[in-house]
Amino acid sequence: MMLKELREQVYEANMDLPKYGLVVFTWGNASQVDRERGLFVIKPSGVPYDELTPESMVVCDFDCNVVEGDLNPSSDTPTHAYLYRQWDNVGGIVHTHSSQAVSWAQAGRPIPCYGTTQADYFYGEVPCMRGLTKDEIEEAYELNTGKVIVEGFKDLDPVSHPGCLVRNHGPFSWGKDAAQAVYHAVVIEEVAKMALHTEQLCVSAGKPIEEALAPQYLLDKHYMRKHGPNAYYGQGK
Amino acid sequence: MMLKELREQVYEANMDLPKYGLVVFTWGNASQVDRERGLFVIKPSGVPYDELTPESMVVCDFDCNVVEGDLNPSSDTPTHAYLYRQWDNVGGIVHTHSSQAVSWAQAGRPIPCYGTTQADYFYGEVPCMRGLTKDEIEEAYELNTGKVIVEGFKDLDPVSHPGCLVRNHGPFSWGKDAAQAVYHAVVIEEVAKMALHTEQLCVSAGKPIEEALAPQYLLDKHYMRKHGPNAYYGQGK
Amino acid sequence: MMLKELREQVYEANMDLPKYGLVVFTWGNASQVDRERGLFVIKPSGVPYDELTPESMVVCDFDCNVVEGDLNPSSDTPTHAYLYRQWDNVGGIVHTHSSQAVSWAQAGRPIPCYGTTQADYFYGEVPCMRGLTKDEIEEAYELNTGKVIVEGFKDLDPVSHPGCLVRNHGPFSWGKDAAQAVYHAVVIEEVAKMALHTEQLCVSAGKPIEEALAPQYLLDKHYMRKHGPNAYYGQGK
Amino acid sequence: MMLKELREQVYEANMDLPKYGLVVFTWGNASQVDRERGLFVIKPSGVPYDELTPESMVVCDFDCNVVEGDLNPSSDTPTHAYLYRQWDNVGGIVHTHSSQAVSWAQAGRPIPCYGTTQADYFYGEVPCMRGLTKDEIEEAYELNTGKVIVEGFKDLDPVSHPGCLVRNHGPFSWGKDAAQAVYHAVVIEEVAKMALHTEQLCVSAGKPIEEALAPQYLLDKHYMRKHGPNAYYGQGK
Repeated sequence: MMLKELREQVYEANMDLPKYGLVVFTWGNASQVDRERGLFVIKPSGVPYDELTPESMVVCDFDCNVVEGDLNPSSDTPTHAYLYRQWDNVGGIVHTHSSQAVSWAQAGRPIPCYGTTQADYFYGEVPCMRGLTKDEIEEAYELNTGKVIVEGFKDLDPVSHPGCLVRNHGPFSWGKDAAQAVYHAVVIEEVAKMALHTEQLCVSAGKPIEEALAPQYLLDKHYMRKHGPNAYYGQGK
Repeated sequence: MMLKELREQVYEANMDLPKYGLVVFTWGNASQVDRERGLFVIKPSGVPYDELTPESMVVCDFDCNVVEGDLNPSSDTPTHAYLYRQWDNVGGIVHTHSSQAVSWAQAGRPIPCYGTTQADYFYGEVPCMRGLTKDEIEEAYELNTGKVIVEGFKDLDPVSHPGCLVRNHGPFSWGKDAAQAVYHAVVIEEVAKMALHTEQLCVSAGKPIEEALAPQYLLDKHYMRKHGPNAYYGQGK
Repeated sequence: MMLKELREQVYEANMDLPKYGLVVFTWGNASQVDRERGLFVIKPSGVPYDELTPESMVVCDFDCNVVEGDLNPSSDTPTHAYLYRQWDNVGGIVHTHSSQAVSWAQAGRPIPCYGTTQADYFYGEVPCMRGLTKDEIEEAYELNTGKVIVEGFKDLDPVSHPGCLVRNHGPFSWGKDAAQAVYHAVVIEEVAKMALHTEQLCVSAGKPIEEALAPQYLLDKHYMRKHGPNAYYGQGK
Repeated sequence: MMLKELREQVYEANMDLPKYGLVVFTWGNASQVDRERGLFVIKPSGVPYDELTPESMVVCDFDCNVVEGDLNPSSDTPTHAYLYRQWDNVGGIVHTHSSQAVSWAQAGRPIPCYGTTQADYFYGEVPCMRGLTKDEIEEAYELNTGKVIVEGFKDLDPVSHPGCLVRNHGPFSWGKDAAQAVYHAVVIEEVAKMALHTEQLCVSAGKPIEEALAPQYLLDKHYMRKHGPNAYYGQGK
């Protein structure tokens, strides 16, 4: 069986989704790429988490052909494949229906950056992509979801904004590998909850929500102390 | 003891209700039908979940007579029986007081379809039934609850809308068996929570909640890729 | 050691408070009375739940004298004692700072009866007592808390309304024994959460919250099918 | 290895942060001081909680020099050090990104004292510090965070107000030791949640939030019965 280690990593990342409370039933998936081989490993479609094993993960190429595996890959496979094709610096991708993030996606709103929790990982807001048109949905829904995301990032760096919301749908996140994509999915869910409550506290005090925005120099500081050339957070790994 | 396998299935479905956080104490019940025999199995009334066993489940006919069992069946038995009599394609029914769904029922509002999480299972809103009249309540409360549900579905298909809210009361859901009815009860609770937060995010941004509605062509796509004749989600079971 | 069985029951009731998520740290207490002896057993003050034992419970008389026990009884003991003296039909009392119920108490609002979950246990709203005056607080705070509750119930039956909120403070509940008082504390927390969300759903839809109130005939039905002379819920115990 | 017992205490306090739901990933830290030696022990930076051990804790002096330890101390170390230097009566400090408290910090609002749960530990509101200026952030962010806290407390006693919010950032709390600082972090999170809901219940009922404030004499009573010279809560330890 090929890509044994990658299968294990993708399996672990998928299992972390229910562990962090991001997924009920089968409502999420994680994948990770092997750039040298031009392949990625992804969760099979509609299989309950407690039946997953590393061996049940599906190996696909960038055209969504199943290279190894007995099961159908996630129905979102064309979205993953398109992002891997377009973004060389992305190694892992996660999609969930985590409830706080979905609420922002359903409201069609980006999550404003109200504080340092978000600024530690997102250099500004969590962007919200436009909804797909009728034609885009009917023609090739999952592929076009990927295209809408790349379109929405034409002026954004997927490294400094490691995730987004797709309107009326839910969050997608990514990172250097599947584990980091899961981490960013947790970040989005946490800041989605905090930002909702922040706005409610502005409303009840009769204060415009814009006054709650974090100033740019705070974003600069928090993002750079973790990710800039002179980062000093952590153990310098 | 009759219907051994069915008793086990109904027992498992009932035990899943507290597991998924839908029920505290005894505030919920699940049943499943045997169409050939014209019987259904349901939870006994007011018995704590940790005292339930497959053997303590109650076998009833469609007139609510106890065919086998030492305990009284759920006080909601006439609602279950009426739905089984009216809807041939329903095999399992669940009722809970799960808090997010109850909140919509208490507000007397259907849950609008704001996104794909709901569209994957409901082909539109989760409908809210009218309240029962004084006469209907005093005459035959639980039977008339069933009648009000069937009345509310006169222009709706219980397969494409596998659940509803009863005003000032709470959610009922159904499916091909008790396990699927539980699944739909979880869906209703999740989308109830998401829709509440979606509306709050519209309010704090000064945006009409109608703008958050998912477009019809998105509903068509999500519902059909799981349930239409050319469904491609899952493993084709 | 006296009242061995009663000590066990009060110990179990206290341990249920953190189990049901009603209490963090030492923020709650449960007691139960022995009417024949004119004594009640209550949690010791400020002792962490994981250090409690049946033996550490404190036996008091209705004048709050410690009859048996090495530890100080709960600082709320005079409230419990006063309620036992005034209300013959109350056998157990619980006080917590559970967060949803406290929110209503802090808003100074009774919890309106918006549905059957509440109507199954409260024959109407969960009443909110007036705040204590400066003099009442300075003179005998805990005793006067009991007096304010009894004053607030001069036109209410503590059996049909088995609990209340004390303004700017939190919930008190009671029942035939400590276990039932805990049960009613859970009911109050659940309906507090549901009613908050119900009102939010009215606000976002531009609907007056009064329209969400359950009609009187629904309250009559639900309360009476569980507690009336012809009750038919449960196993007739 | 020096300060063995202190290392154990700081380790335990750090492990309590995820246990109480205050921290996900590495988003929090706890420290405790040894006044005689002029040293404090703090969590290493960016190390996952399940990899922490008492031995991995870092010993620092008040100038933030690492006196013992192979790992970098928390990036917030200069904030802790400054508070220990300025406040002789503080023995332990905690910082988290707990979601309810962060929401108030992001809204830039102190948590008003709406009831006794808060009054038992805070003699009034949980204050919210001003945001740091661009210069303060760029010059010495973490040190200046400490300075802004001390500035905000120029008319407040850190014993009667054992914590605060830093605008657009999150909560800091303290106490006689790290364990008590954790306790106060839990208090802040609980009262933050209660106060949010209290305000929402005022909004939905059309009532000004100011009417929900606890009267001064209630604050006096609750704070004094636990912390005053004649305190009578607990076992007189």
